[in-house]
Amino acid sequence: MEKPMLVFQTDFTYKEGAVCAMYGVVKSVDRSLEIIDGTHELPQYDTWSASYRLYQSMSFWPKGTIFVSVVDPGVGTSRKACVAKTSNGYYVVTPDNGTLTHIKKYMGIDEVREIDETVNRLKRDDNTEVAIFHGRDLFGYCAARLASGIITYEEVGPAYSVEKIKTHEILEPHIYDDRIEGIFEINDPNFGNLWSNITLKSFKEAGFKFGDKIHTEIYHKDEKVFDDELYYYQSFSTAANHTVMIYNNEINKIAMAVVIGNLCKEYNLDFGPDYRVVFYKK
Amino acid sequence: MEKPMLVFQTDFTYKEGAVCAMYGVVKSVDRSLEIIDGTHELPQYDTWSASYRLYQSMSFWPKGTIFVSVVDPGVGTSRKACVAKTSNGYYVVTPDNGTLTHIKKYMGIDEVREIDETVNRLKRDDNTEVAIFHGRDLFGYCAARLASGIITYEEVGPAYSVEKIKTHEILEPHIYDDRIEGIFEINDPNFGNLWSNITLKSFKEAGFKFGDKIHTEIYHKDEKVFDDELYYYQSFSTAANHTVMIYNNEINKIAMAVVIGNLCKEYNLDFGPDYRVVFYKK
Amino acid sequence: MEKPMLVFQTDFTYKEGAVCAMYGVVKSVDRSLEIIDGTHELPQYDTWSASYRLYQSMSFWPKGTIFVSVVDPGVGTSRKACVAKTSNGYYVVTPDNGTLTHIKKYMGIDEVREIDETVNRLKRDDNTEVAIFHGRDLFGYCAARLASGIITYEEVGPAYSVEKIKTHEILEPHIYDDRIEGIFEINDPNFGNLWSNITLKSFKEAGFKFGDKIHTEIYHKDEKVFDDELYYYQSFSTAANHTVMIYNNEINKIAMAVVIGNLCKEYNLDFGPDYRVVFYKK
Repeated sequence: MEKPMLVFQTDFTYKEGAVCAMYGVVKSVDRSLEIIDGTHELPQYDTWSASYRLYQSMSFWPKGTIFVSVVDPGVGTSRKACVAKTSNGYYVVTPDNGTLTHIKKYMGIDEVREIDETVNRLKRDDNTEVAIFHGRDLFGYCAARLASGIITYEEVGPAYSVEKIKTHEILEPHIYDDRIEGIFEINDPNFGNLWSNITLKSFKEAGFKFGDKIHTEIYHKDEKVFDDELYYYQSFSTAANHTVMIYNNEINKIAMAVVIGNLCKEYNLDFGPDYRVVFYKK
Repeated sequence: MEKPMLVFQTDFTYKEGAVCAMYGVVKSVDRSLEIIDGTHELPQYDTWSASYRLYQSMSFWPKGTIFVSVVDPGVGTSRKACVAKTSNGYYVVTPDNGTLTHIKKYMGIDEVREIDETVNRLKRDDNTEVAIFHGRDLFGYCAARLASGIITYEEVGPAYSVEKIKTHEILEPHIYDDRIEGIFEINDPNFGNLWSNITLKSFKEAGFKFGDKIHTEIYHKDEKVFDDELYYYQSFSTAANHTVMIYNNEINKIAMAVVIGNLCKEYNLDFGPDYRVVFYKK
Repeated sequence: MEKPMLVFQTDFTYKEGAVCAMYGVVKSVDRSLEIIDGTHELPQYDTWSASYRLYQSMSFWPKGTIFVSVVDPGVGTSRKACVAKTSNGYYVVTPDNGTLTHIKKYMGIDEVREIDETVNRLKRDDNTEVAIFHGRDLFGYCAARLASGIITYEEVGPAYSVEKIKTHEILEPHIYDDRIEGIFEINDPNFGNLWSNITLKSFKEAGFKFGDKIHTEIYHKDEKVFDDELYYYQSFSTAANHTVMIYNNEINKIAMAVVIGNLCKEYNLDFGPDYRVVFYKK
């Protein structure tokens, strides 16, 4: 049977040798394993973004793929190191620190096991006193053993209750008589687009459709920081360059962008529970 | 027969989950396909740079390699999605938006086909209303089907006239009695070097040779922004550190650099038709 | 026999087409070769960092792996292009410009050969006058031929004395009656941590142990730029967020960090011989 691929995401960047050492460990376990860069540019220490990026990309991969996510501000503390088995057929090797938030809620987790460090931690003379690089010594190593078939999923370590998995709160949007309200729950840090937590389904239920001109307000805490009439279009270039527009993003959430521009930078906006967006019905 | 490799270049960066989702689609079409990162750091929306980078690297790859280029400011508009077959034996899967400029002029395109979305677009329950991610849903998917042999080149979709391919204007240098003039047509954004459109061949025809000291002027529009006597050397470290020099770049175009420095930053220069460079004969 | 992997590290970045062209050359020599990105984001022209990153990651790879390191400020000058065979079973293809410093000192080099350009340089009609891209035309090409088995190690070119390999000076820490002194020899440019040249072994010999509160001073040249009492912990999150702490890094050297922060940026610190760190015994 074909060995599953390993898709890695971390906040290490490629600026130094950490990714290289981690991948070396994988290849030393089993030369034939296939390693894919998911991303190594997650925002530092940001387990919310780690969770979101898994949610955004996971379902496009073949079943059985093993995701290794290492955003690990609590490395060396009592936070659990785990491998989750998702209801849609994937594995996630990760610190149990909120990284499983979206997967647990939207895809479901059937089982979770704590990595047994006595068995599944890399043993070398020179790493017994190293407590700060679990990407190399624990997550990468354990994931490689699992992908290679050296250990079964059960041999990862003892199971614990899925209910005990640490998660962040996911805020839900609200539909009112005259408007729909949500928050920007993430951005596209490259193009500067902002993605709300309002689903396409809710947006349609609220009565909005492509071509609508929509009165839109954005609040940072209690301060109104944006107020304009915007078009809701199917794609960017329907609107003129440099106009702000509303669109349905790649995972069916309502988003905002500046055409051939950068909404976050040009309007000084960001994401998080403090950034509320309101779309008014006609 | 061995399946061709897929070399990707986009302006997505690795900052979020887009590349990961796109590669997941490729691997879901055919696990055995080999994916190579060309680059995911093309300047945003810049189809000129996309075109130039294909031109710079393509011929070093094995014949048959499939390049997937997704710099796509017009995603979701009427711009064509196409697969071009080059005269030198490669395929390019790309929006038809200027990305084929240099390949068409310097390598030649034998045939171009518009991707038939009814056949070669990824079909999932959750992407029917997504119009903004053709890298994942169209280009990556179609390229994977072509590489895998699921479709032939003819099955990409209907052919259209190579003459109708959208291209940017490529400016040519001029040789005068006393000088040669060109523009900086691209930069090396990492080292800050500027690459002119003057070929080594023209430069030699104009009488220049290694070791020459050359009176050099740079104009931004009508303003002279640089005026100095520079040496033309075969490689960087022949000149002293921090001196500006002229050299023959990796694709035989005349270029300028600061030795162990950054010409663009230190002299506030950039590329494009507004940046004219003049080398005076003795 | 399985062909060795090629692990690349350069200062090229992925911002333009250089890495793509270089990898195309490798795949044109032998399609079956496996290419791994070590990093392409080494600091520009910085052969010290190139050396350090090899040292940090090399031993985690399977024996026989071929490392290709191209930080090459002297490209086109008389600096040698070489392939070193290390005492611990790896190959390094690199300009002989200081990149082998740490490997030579800490792992040992058994043999070094100068690349014979008459045999192991890529020959194309359009690169005979290109002198500035040895990553593509020489190092990548020669490494691919070696990995593929087209040439033996002996056929790389003539051996020269290991003693003649160019190296940077590595500074050693000093233990005094009341303190241990070293320098910051490298940083973690992503998280902003600073890694000293003081080994865990020396630190323990000086009497320090986890949990100690240590009077710590940092000097930039003769100026004291940091003076505080810091805890020495096994891992980051033992200390409160935003506190400065001392820890044992991933290669058993004593390092400093701001918990969920960035020491270099927040305290305006850097690495190099000018940055001296002093830990006082109780």
